[in-house]
Amino acid sequence: MIFDAKDRVLFIGDSVSDFGRARPVGEGLHDGVGTGFIRVISNFINGYYPERNIRITNMGISGNNVLDLDDRWQSDVLDLEPDWVNILIGINDVWRQFDTPDCCAKGCITPEIYERTYRELLDRTVPYVKGVTLMTPYYMEPLKEDMMRKRMDEYVAAVKRIAKDYGFICIDLQRVFDEYLKVRHSSYLTWDRVHPNGTGATLIAMEFLKEVGFDFSRLSRALSQ
Amino acid sequence: MIFDAKDRVLFIGDSVSDFGRARPVGEGLHDGVGTGFIRVISNFINGYYPERNIRITNMGISGNNVLDLDDRWQSDVLDLEPDWVNILIGINDVWRQFDTPDCCAKGCITPEIYERTYRELLDRTVPYVKGVTLMTPYYMEPLKEDMMRKRMDEYVAAVKRIAKDYGFICIDLQRVFDEYLKVRHSSYLTWDRVHPNGTGATLIAMEFLKEVGFDFSRLSRALSQ
Amino acid sequence: MIFDAKDRVLFIGDSVSDFGRARPVGEGLHDGVGTGFIRVISNFINGYYPERNIRITNMGISGNNVLDLDDRWQSDVLDLEPDWVNILIGINDVWRQFDTPDCCAKGCITPEIYERTYRELLDRTVPYVKGVTLMTPYYMEPLKEDMMRKRMDEYVAAVKRIAKDYGFICIDLQRVFDEYLKVRHSSYLTWDRVHPNGTGATLIAMEFLKEVGFDFSRLSRALSQ
Amino acid sequence: MIFDAKDRVLFIGDSVSDFGRARPVGEGLHDGVGTGFIRVISNFINGYYPERNIRITNMGISGNNVLDLDDRWQSDVLDLEPDWVNILIGINDVWRQFDTPDCCAKGCITPEIYERTYRELLDRTVPYVKGVTLMTPYYMEPLKEDMMRKRMDEYVAAVKRIAKDYGFICIDLQRVFDEYLKVRHSSYLTWDRVHPNGTGATLIAMEFLKEVGFDFSRLSRALSQ
Amino acid sequence: MIFDAKDRVLFIGDSVSDFGRARPVGEGLHDGVGTGFIRVISNFINGYYPERNIRITNMGISGNNVLDLDDRWQSDVLDLEPDWVNILIGINDVWRQFDTPDCCAKGCITPEIYERTYRELLDRTVPYVKGVTLMTPYYMEPLKEDMMRKRMDEYVAAVKRIAKDYGFICIDLQRVFDEYLKVRHSSYLTWDRVHPNGTGATLIAMEFLKEVGFDFSRLSRALSQ
Amino acid sequence: MIFDAKDRVLFIGDSVSDFGRARPVGEGLHDGVGTGFIRVISNFINGYYPERNIRITNMGISGNNVLDLDDRWQSDVLDLEPDWVNILIGINDVWRQFDTPDCCAKGCITPEIYERTYRELLDRTVPYVKGVTLMTPYYMEPLKEDMMRKRMDEYVAAVKRIAKDYGFICIDLQRVFDEYLKVRHSSYLTWDRVHPNGTGATLIAMEFLKEVGFDFSRLSRALSQ
Amino acid sequence: MIFDAKDRVLFIGDSVSDFGRARPVGEGLHDGVGTGFIRVISNFINGYYPERNIRITNMGISGNNVLDLDDRWQSDVLDLEPDWVNILIGINDVWRQFDTPDCCAKGCITPEIYERTYRELLDRTVPYVKGVTLMTPYYMEPLKEDMMRKRMDEYVAAVKRIAKDYGFICIDLQRVFDEYLKVRHSSYLTWDRVHPNGTGATLIAMEFLKEVGFDFSRLSRALSQ
Amino acid sequence: MIFDAKDRVLFIGDSVSDFGRARPVGEGLHDGVGTGFIRVISNFINGYYPERNIRITNMGISGNNVLDLDDRWQSDVLDLEPDWVNILIGINDVWRQFDTPDCCAKGCITPEIYERTYRELLDRTVPYVKGVTLMTPYYMEPLKEDMMRKRMDEYVAAVKRIAKDYGFICIDLQRVFDEYLKVRHSSYLTWDRVHPNGTGATLIAMEFLKEVGFDFSRLSRALSQ
Repeated sequence: MIFDAKDRVLFIGDSVSDFGRARPVGEGLHDGVGTGFIRVISNFINGYYPERNIRITNMGISGNNVLDLDDRWQSDVLDLEPDWVNILIGINDVWRQFDTPDCCAKGCITPEIYERTYRELLDRTVPYVKGVTLMTPYYMEPLKEDMMRKRMDEYVAAVKRIAKDYGFICIDLQRVFDEYLKVRHSSYLTWDRVHPNGTGATLIAMEFLKEVGFDFSRLSRALSQ
Repeated sequence: MIFDAKDRVLFIGDSVSDFGRARPVGEGLHDGVGTGFIRVISNFINGYYPERNIRITNMGISGNNVLDLDDRWQSDVLDLEPDWVNILIGINDVWRQFDTPDCCAKGCITPEIYERTYRELLDRTVPYVKGVTLMTPYYMEPLKEDMMRKRMDEYVAAVKRIAKDYGFICIDLQRVFDEYLKVRHSSYLTWDRVHPNGTGATLIAMEFLKEVGFDFSRLSRALSQ
Repeated sequence: MIFDAKDRVLFIGDSVSDFGRARPVGEGLHDGVGTGFIRVISNFINGYYPERNIRITNMGISGNNVLDLDDRWQSDVLDLEPDWVNILIGINDVWRQFDTPDCCAKGCITPEIYERTYRELLDRTVPYVKGVTLMTPYYMEPLKEDMMRKRMDEYVAAVKRIAKDYGFICIDLQRVFDEYLKVRHSSYLTWDRVHPNGTGATLIAMEFLKEVGFDFSRLSRALSQ
Repeated sequence: MIFDAKDRVLFIGDSVSDFGRARPVGEGLHDGVGTGFIRVISNFINGYYPERNIRITNMGISGNNVLDLDDRWQSDVLDLEPDWVNILIGINDVWRQFDTPDCCAKGCITPEIYERTYRELLDRTVPYVKGVTLMTPYYMEPLKEDMMRKRMDEYVAAVKRIAKDYGFICIDLQRVFDEYLKVRHSSYLTWDRVHPNGTGATLIAMEFLKEVGFDFSRLSRALSQ
Repeated sequence: MIFDAKDRVLFIGDSVSDFGRARPVGEGLHDGVGTGFIRVISNFINGYYPERNIRITNMGISGNNVLDLDDRWQSDVLDLEPDWVNILIGINDVWRQFDTPDCCAKGCITPEIYERTYRELLDRTVPYVKGVTLMTPYYMEPLKEDMMRKRMDEYVAAVKRIAKDYGFICIDLQRVFDEYLKVRHSSYLTWDRVHPNGTGATLIAMEFLKEVGFDFSRLSRALSQ
Repeated sequence: MIFDAKDRVLFIGDSVSDFGRARPVGEGLHDGVGTGFIRVISNFINGYYPERNIRITNMGISGNNVLDLDDRWQSDVLDLEPDWVNILIGINDVWRQFDTPDCCAKGCITPEIYERTYRELLDRTVPYVKGVTLMTPYYMEPLKEDMMRKRMDEYVAAVKRIAKDYGFICIDLQRVFDEYLKVRHSSYLTWDRVHPNGTGATLIAMEFLKEVGFDFSRLSRALSQ
Repeated sequence: MIFDAKDRVLFIGDSVSDFGRARPVGEGLHDGVGTGFIRVISNFINGYYPERNIRITNMGISGNNVLDLDDRWQSDVLDLEPDWVNILIGINDVWRQFDTPDCCAKGCITPEIYERTYRELLDRTVPYVKGVTLMTPYYMEPLKEDMMRKRMDEYVAAVKRIAKDYGFICIDLQRVFDEYLKVRHSSYLTWDRVHPNGTGATLIAMEFLKEVGFDFSRLSRALSQ
Repeated sequence: MIFDAKDRVLFIGDSVSDFGRARPVGEGLHDGVGTGFIRVISNFINGYYPERNIRITNMGISGNNVLDLDDRWQSDVLDLEPDWVNILIGINDVWRQFDTPDCCAKGCITPEIYERTYRELLDRTVPYVKGVTLMTPYYMEPLKEDMMRKRMDEYVAAVKRIAKDYGFICIDLQRVFDEYLKVRHSSYLTWDRVHPNGTGATLIAMEFLKEVGFDFSRLSRALSQ
């Protein structure tokens, strides 16, 4: 696994990250990391690499878009001196274009604004961290002709392009859900196609863990000998 | 309009009808008819036909399916001696097959059970009322290859078939939403593709009013001379 | 309809406008426009002119009078850069003279203060907007010898005079209610003769829509072909 | 004053009596008699005739009409063995005809039903008590051409007729308010023209005390010598 | 009665005045004057002198002592420009010496501090008002050898002395309660011998009204002719 | 100490015992014995005789008088098979005569009824227990000419007489408080002269422990060697 | 994995199972299975074997011991017709002996009672199910000389003995935690050494999944190709 | 007892002190000193030395460690001008190393930091007070090989060393609990081995009282003669 002993891994994002995390800093006792996918990641890292004392910090805020991250990047990311940063942003950037089209009729966060801001955030961060992992935004709608899914794909593509350019790990959540939704309907994972239930959070977490080199064989090994 | 002075019009259904109506009987002061589409219908009938004193009663219960209606039909419909009954049922019958597939793995409310039960309810009702209006169930998903939409279409078809057989007015809500969703994405009307916001409730109500012969010209006439 | 695509229509007023709108800006998801007559207007504009993406913003605050509007006009109206402004104010200006006569024994908002302030607000606004619509204040009391109704009529007259001078659309709510109250008693619409229930809100909204050129034939057309 | 030492005076009625009284029996510590006009009566009787230990019991229930009283007369009046009974009923009997005209379109509590039931209650009571005092219902609307006031006057007349026939004290609350409303508008006493504020409750209580022979000169005497 | 038309009568004091009054200014709709003795005074003045439009303002704050009044005298009394001021203070000054003797072991509000501060407040006020009425503090304990009653008597004496020196009306509440407690035990009026129930509030209010020249004969006259 | 290992000691009484105890049986985790004097007793017995495993059960109910105990004696005392029973009752029997004199004007729990019922309860209990301890009721009012104190003394005397007749330990709480109140005023211990604060509860508990033979020297011994 | 398509797997137990599950049956939408270890198991089975539609039902109730299970076995286990049953019971049986030693001084659930009852439950169940899995109770205290741990070991041994006799899978939770507590202190997993946090729940769930043959290689396979 | 009349004794510490004390200053009416061990101490000092009027102030704040005390020492200790200060700190300094090892992986409050800061606090305090009493931190875990107990012993030793160097009274709470836990398991006193129940609070308080020279013989003497 790419995280060393005592590394601090900071997750920044929107409500999918947030899930009731502690304020002002999302860590510590009593589900300080919230009860979403980051809690699942934390459970596995603390459960199977307890000797590494990896510090997981959740700085997601519900409703945020990439411009909101820009506003609070210094205080909520850089000032906390993380070793690793995971970014999951973009869902609200797209959603607001469809659930409140009137409010953004004269201007919305276009893919161009999104990508440019995203890259600026990375440029401000790279000098100070060991690495960054990127999660693509997603819409749990497998039909690509859906208006919002179609739009989302542009933002997903932007994140993949960025990850490639910077050489960062990219966790393709849209693909994870597309796979799953071949078997079950999205309403199993969520009613709004955005906020995952426990199963959805587990799918996200496992994909993250796989990509960062978590040794799944520990699950059976550690427990059974 | 088909409703005579002093007629009692009873709406039976699920959460789309319910919307916080009064218990045990959904009528009277302080939004006794709830705050969903029935409230909109009531506003227009009371606003533009005040002299008729038409009594509107909302007996919807959140989460109900056609079998639940069967259980409470005598007490919640027939005992209240309505002149007209409007039925909107079927959404939960379908939804549960997709959001909790494990729980209905060994048995669900099939289109056959749905249609048979629905007809039995009508047969118990016809002798005692002036008429029945049927609303099709719906899923605010315009893409017909969506798993749940596909399944819903079978229940929609059943309601249309029943309406035709009995000669009742059929309000085709699926079509109403399909039309609207050509322009805006479903997330404008609702995040879960089932529970309509105010705009969605208005679309349902206007279609109902049109089908029962509400005179829309009253809207400008009554107010302006 | 006089509103163009992407126009922002801002409603300013008192509790009749407010009805639980979002703070600080009354718009967006989850009934951000409140649940009063503005919600009804929004439902119809979004329901039948969805392609125009007209942005509706509710800035009413419960208890406000014309002097309160004056205090917050810059931040709550002009700074939001509306294309259209609708004003409904005056009810509290009159009501306080009757429900707390002791508190305004030494001074109240006279018709003169009301009209002068109202005109100043308009003068500050006209250069920046496409137009303003004025709603008369009202008291749902049809008997003109009622003390408070008599007083209210002076404020109603002021608004009509202003509308005429400026050439603005005037929605005469007092007349709307006077018509309705020929058939039903005011206690049907409200217990306090001020805050309308759903039916009252619908009467207000329809009169507004008629005056701004809403095409009511869309109600049957859009839904049924 | 007509009440003897240790007499139990029971008030039966609707929300104007109720005002948050204790359940099941409205008396005792912590405002057991509620906080309406009965509290004011109790304050004066306990304050200025403390040596008589007169027991005041409030059995009003919000929303009640004369038929509701009929249903609970045995348990809530006779079983408590009062020496005196005060009745204030009829407001809801009339109000419902105007605020929910649809619900009583096919039948309401007519003046005939009202008077007949009222007399039956008295007949069941007279043998067991020292006396009964009757309060007329009222509507705090001084204009007699108001629809609901006009209707209320029929019920007021019925109570006066009954009082005369039985020879009971009649507290004419409609007249009390008519007098007061010559000076102030009804919105000072209440917004809904039914539920009095503290001043209204005081007006009711003083009229009652006057009619039952309360010695007002005690107010200055007892306190000052 | 000493109050002229449009006079503002301001009550300043502790929890016996406060009783849930509105903040920041205790007046206006919805029991803005609280629900204690000031509410009773207001009910009678508004009920029987409605044409005078006397404005009653309650500025009591629970827990206050004379030093607390000193701190807020400018903002809470003088700035409101009252015509008359009623002061009821001193109960907490004494009570704290007995219920938390440890906290004031090294210093408490002695009768000297109390009287000196009280006079200073009056000196700051006299030039700006028509008059001041003083209520003595009290302890609803008739036995004068009770430790706290004995101490309270020193503060009562101070207020009487002040009233005499300044020539102000003095409402001797301790005497009012002493009279009443000859007949009933203090636990009827209150459990803590400080906060009066409705009957106690009425006793205070009637004594005040008597001293300011309220015409009690209006109670029977106004209502009955 | 008179309690043997594994003895069950049951406390029965009113609100002074109750203090938020668990329902239906007042014992066990999370302050099941409430937070009043029984909690203090429990703390000392469990703290300094932990090896005896004495089971303490609190069955007090707020507001109870001796007749209430009579109603629930079988289920709440005898059925629980205590080894010892402690009774503290009588305060409400007296208090109601003073705080609601009207309600008991025609009948109250006289000393005779009190004593007779009390003795009957004991007779039903003696055959089944190791012993009973009696606490006198009390009023934290040291002045014996106080009306309620005077009345209370009759009930205190009854309990002492009963204790003597039966040969039971009598904990004279009135005397405990009389002693204390020579130094501090009752308002230190409580505002209502009935419900003790923590200090008052400690005084009760220590007197109980002394009477049942608690070895206070354990307090210093157990902790310090 | 031993569970076939459409199998119903029912978990019965105490608060470690319960964790806020739905009532009366712990399954379905909105975390119906609670938020403890069963939620984790459900997430993995639904996430990685979605095509099997395995139905997971949580019937744990906080505070239960083996005798409580006995009381509700018919209604809460057998009547639900599970294919598999998982039992986790015994923690409260032991804990109460230590946290409320007084209450069970005269009798507690000894290892003998525990084992005998446990076996009876199994005998009633075996004929109707495909299999039963047993989880040992545990105390997250690695030091075996701890009083409560020592006692717990007797109950753990009983479950292992039973599992062996019946040939059932035994998930040895005590061993799982003993392993983990070699690296981290128990206060990381929980403050009370009983209720696991998310990491503890994950350790339980993974051990269960391993024992029932869950294919962990699906975690990386399913997500990544 | 070492405390003189009118001395102020201030307790500073963490949640074991805090227990819901009043803010900003923990003293006065309504359990201002909280409901933990300080309440017990207060009960005994006020109960048995009432004539001394010793003022007890609780300034504990939940979650605090020695560095937190350092931050607020001036405002929360010195500014209140206590005569005596009791310090109980260190539990959180140790606990966080075990329940959130990740968060303090890069740095924690070592015994060195703890002792140095503690001594600095004393040096700032000594010139202004009559004396300081020190309570050792503790962990209610009697087995010394427990990881956290082992670590705690270093902090306990530091406090003892400091007390000796300064010549202050040292209340060895770890020893108090070690003694008690020979008889009962820690789960009787608390589930988390830190926050004592009433019995635990009593053990702390009695040890404190013993060390400060409380005369326990007063318990039997004062009450019984």
